[in-house]
Amino acid sequence: MDKSDISLAVIKRLPRYYRHLEELMESGVERISSHDLSVRMNVTASQIRQDLNNFGGFGQQGYGYNVPNLHEQIAKILGIDQIHNMIIVGAGNLGRAIAGYSNFEKRGFKVMGLFDSNPALVGTQAGGHNIYPMDDFEDYIKENNVEIIALTIPREAAQEIADCAVKAGVKAIWNFAPTDIMVPDKVVVENVHLSESLMTLSYTISKMN
Amino acid sequence: MDKSDISLAVIKRLPRYYRHLEELMESGVERISSHDLSVRMNVTASQIRQDLNNFGGFGQQGYGYNVPNLHEQIAKILGIDQIHNMIIVGAGNLGRAIAGYSNFEKRGFKVMGLFDSNPALVGTQAGGHNIYPMDDFEDYIKENNVEIIALTIPREAAQEIADCAVKAGVKAIWNFAPTDIMVPDKVVVENVHLSESLMTLSYTISKMN
Repeated sequence: MDKSDISLAVIKRLPRYYRHLEELMESGVERISSHDLSVRMNVTASQIRQDLNNFGGFGQQGYGYNVPNLHEQIAKILGIDQIHNMIIVGAGNLGRAIAGYSNFEKRGFKVMGLFDSNPALVGTQAGGHNIYPMDDFEDYIKENNVEIIALTIPREAAQEIADCAVKAGVKAIWNFAPTDIMVPDKVVVENVHLSESLMTLSYTISKMN
Repeated sequence: MDKSDISLAVIKRLPRYYRHLEELMESGVERISSHDLSVRMNVTASQIRQDLNNFGGFGQQGYGYNVPNLHEQIAKILGIDQIHNMIIVGAGNLGRAIAGYSNFEKRGFKVMGLFDSNPALVGTQAGGHNIYPMDDFEDYIKENNVEIIALTIPREAAQEIADCAVKAGVKAIWNFAPTDIMVPDKVVVENVHLSESLMTLSYTISKMN
């Protein structure tokens, strides 16, 4: 099936399916009905059937879903059955937090190392990964087939570093800097703007009071 | 105007307006036309006019928007013109990163302190804030009018701590633990699931290749 036919709303829900299926596998569950999955995920069974039908429907009448199989299929659709090399720019607390998550590696995102402009950090480690100087940034991307950079730096430096990374050939920027990054069409930007998430929270609180 | 009439899509865009207006103010810009704002934000001028008309429309024909005024109005709508007391549960790298962001405080989110179950961390500081023991968690919430808890802990402990926090009276949970948190209707949960954000990125990369 052509991936481009699937709506973004469905895609955005897939990682959550993936996470629940992973938890089921860890608990030794081999199969699950759409009803039970819907109770667990707090969505309707009809929503689940509709979502998964987009991919040819992995359920079988009277059996439900085979958990490891569905888990594998969703991994393929999300492209996490393959290894994506990633580096982290910025070895502050947020960069270190990302470097330390073993979950990412399990999902095919291989942290190769961190880069920082602070000479005192260069040569040390974070989460078991080396911290390299910014001077080596572009060469490292080219030589190590880096696909993704995580930007955990102040907003002032973000665009310049994104430009270098794009020039060196990265495919995607996972942007934590609180600013909009401009990139060519062939490059993907996924933003995690923490302040904006907190403001949405604040709005909902103020509306409920 | 009744806030409940505004669509969630518009609300989700407001923090981005707020951020751009803040940057304009820092650059000393007093007023801006919807055209110039649209170029800067890379959206259409018509979208901007439509969005801001939801709040009575702060623009004036032939003048454009008064930047500080619009900034203030959006702050009011988002509820960030008021102080929200927040504590962070988990003093690992992610908790420390959040504790260290001066931006949050500027937007009305006052970090009161961190809580951690590790006795070695209790009594130390992160980002200038004290780290307290989990034993004091519920009392602290009650005595300090804590509205928001940021959960930066492993998923296994997340629900239990959320339950305690809700019992003690928090209004909102900013959840970084990779799991779904169940709360009563009157409590808000805003999720930041980093793995899921990374999987969306991976999907977009795999689709483009």
